[in-house]
Amino acid sequence: MADQLASWNDTPTRAAILHFVERVTTEGGPDFVPPSERIATFDNDGTLWCEKPLYVQAEFILRKWRAMAEADPSLAERQPYKAVVENDQAWLSALTDHVPDLVRGVSEAFGGLTTEAFEAEVVEFFESVRHPTLDVAYTEAGYAPMRELLALLESSDFRVFICSGGGRDFIRPVSERIYGIPRERVIGSSAPLELRDGALVRTEGVEQPIDDGPGKPVHIWARIGRRPLLAGGNADGDVEMLAQARFALLVDHDDADREFAYTSGAEKSLEAAAAHGWTVVSIRNDWATVFA
Amino acid sequence: MADQLASWNDTPTRAAILHFVERVTTEGGPDFVPPSERIATFDNDGTLWCEKPLYVQAEFILRKWRAMAEADPSLAERQPYKAVVENDQAWLSALTDHVPDLVRGVSEAFGGLTTEAFEAEVVEFFESVRHPTLDVAYTEAGYAPMRELLALLESSDFRVFICSGGGRDFIRPVSERIYGIPRERVIGSSAPLELRDGALVRTEGVEQPIDDGPGKPVHIWARIGRRPLLAGGNADGDVEMLAQARFALLVDHDDADREFAYTSGAEKSLEAAAAHGWTVVSIRNDWATVFA
Repeated sequence: MADQLASWNDTPTRAAILHFVERVTTEGGPDFVPPSERIATFDNDGTLWCEKPLYVQAEFILRKWRAMAEADPSLAERQPYKAVVENDQAWLSALTDHVPDLVRGVSEAFGGLTTEAFEAEVVEFFESVRHPTLDVAYTEAGYAPMRELLALLESSDFRVFICSGGGRDFIRPVSERIYGIPRERVIGSSAPLELRDGALVRTEGVEQPIDDGPGKPVHIWARIGRRPLLAGGNADGDVEMLAQARFALLVDHDDADREFAYTSGAEKSLEAAAAHGWTVVSIRNDWATVFA
Repeated sequence: MADQLASWNDTPTRAAILHFVERVTTEGGPDFVPPSERIATFDNDGTLWCEKPLYVQAEFILRKWRAMAEADPSLAERQPYKAVVENDQAWLSALTDHVPDLVRGVSEAFGGLTTEAFEAEVVEFFESVRHPTLDVAYTEAGYAPMRELLALLESSDFRVFICSGGGRDFIRPVSERIYGIPRERVIGSSAPLELRDGALVRTEGVEQPIDDGPGKPVHIWARIGRRPLLAGGNADGDVEMLAQARFALLVDHDDADREFAYTSGAEKSLEAAAAHGWTVVSIRNDWATVFA
């Protein structure tokens, strides 16, 4: 199995992962878990792909708002369009203070679109936009070591699910290409959908609970009907999911040279990792390669 | 493939199914569909297992209400307990006229239970209760020809999902045993769940939309991110799901000797089948064996 984690350095982190997978797959062993119960769930942003300087989906949404405000300049008189047009970094860097504006803006941008029309916009985004600092397409902004880990788990008869706080239908069109994960194994947040004349149409608002924090175990149960045996995350919104798993992996962004170094938004998850003995992945020390 | 449908008579229905599966799996052929897009969805009650004289889940719920009223006789003063205790067939046979009473009764019966505690009650039911007229355990009340069809689809690289108007978490504990379908491929209705101290707890009411009628395509997209290539149903609540599929199969309950004969609740689906050229399965004519 070890040669399947070629982008990982030979550290205790890699050894802990390999040891766990070996234990649960060793038939007759004390920790054997039958394949039907081998479920792995991974957060996406910051766990499987780069989430800085902006969430990829935030970039997608900001571009849409900018295009809308260009088409209809009167939009720039109110938020969130105003901040986008004026490039108001103070407003944009404190998005969580403006949730009602954001939700209304997302509903205005994508409400009424069919799932197919939304997907076409997502595909167009991934085909045309590149990461602003890494000089790669967003479809190449996934972490090579995590891609290898997903493949190792799949080849060990795990079913691997992505469990993102972000938009489910934003990741699905590229999940197979980036991660080898088919779209039916992508869990995430979504606008409520409605059937209209045979078409599935995005409506206003956000389905509750969103797939973050305490919503993650709820979504995982709704979709899978099991707790994860192994889970991976990187931020405070992953704590509840990680707490459900037998083996929890927390990615620590400590590599300013090759990626980004930050703990903001991960304070509680790092504390929980220390308290519960979760396995912390240091990007700087544990990964030989970050991007393929 | 034909020998995989051994419980089917050699009729045009069986030929139509085999022909469709052959067309979409023939590489290089004009109707080839890549495996990633081969999704099949099946209603459960009346499509995969017997739904008469009562939905299996209704039997489960009525038993619980009876036990609650025995433990607390004051419950018998109000519905739905009153009807159960008095065996009021008029009330019980018109359940859809009493939805608020039913929803409140279900919340009182199962609200506050963890998913594990609910599953224990479901398992206990399936281990102890037998079908009232067929003289088999409920776990043997699945249709052998449909079980064979699910296996044929799986061996043709379809991913098969159960998409039930009834309770998702009621079917999951037995889906593997009865149908060979793992629990992560069971879609259905549910009480809203909430995370409390790490446990997933059933709360009051029913998650909207329920997985019936126009809610089925919504649930299927939310869970799978694709439309079904093939779908199977038997009742009016399946029409919207069947209309999404390239190949739609409608089970017609026309065999009073070996199962039950009824069209009540299936009037619109039979009309839609005629209008759209869906393939109708006559239990009497198309199935050599009904139960294994």
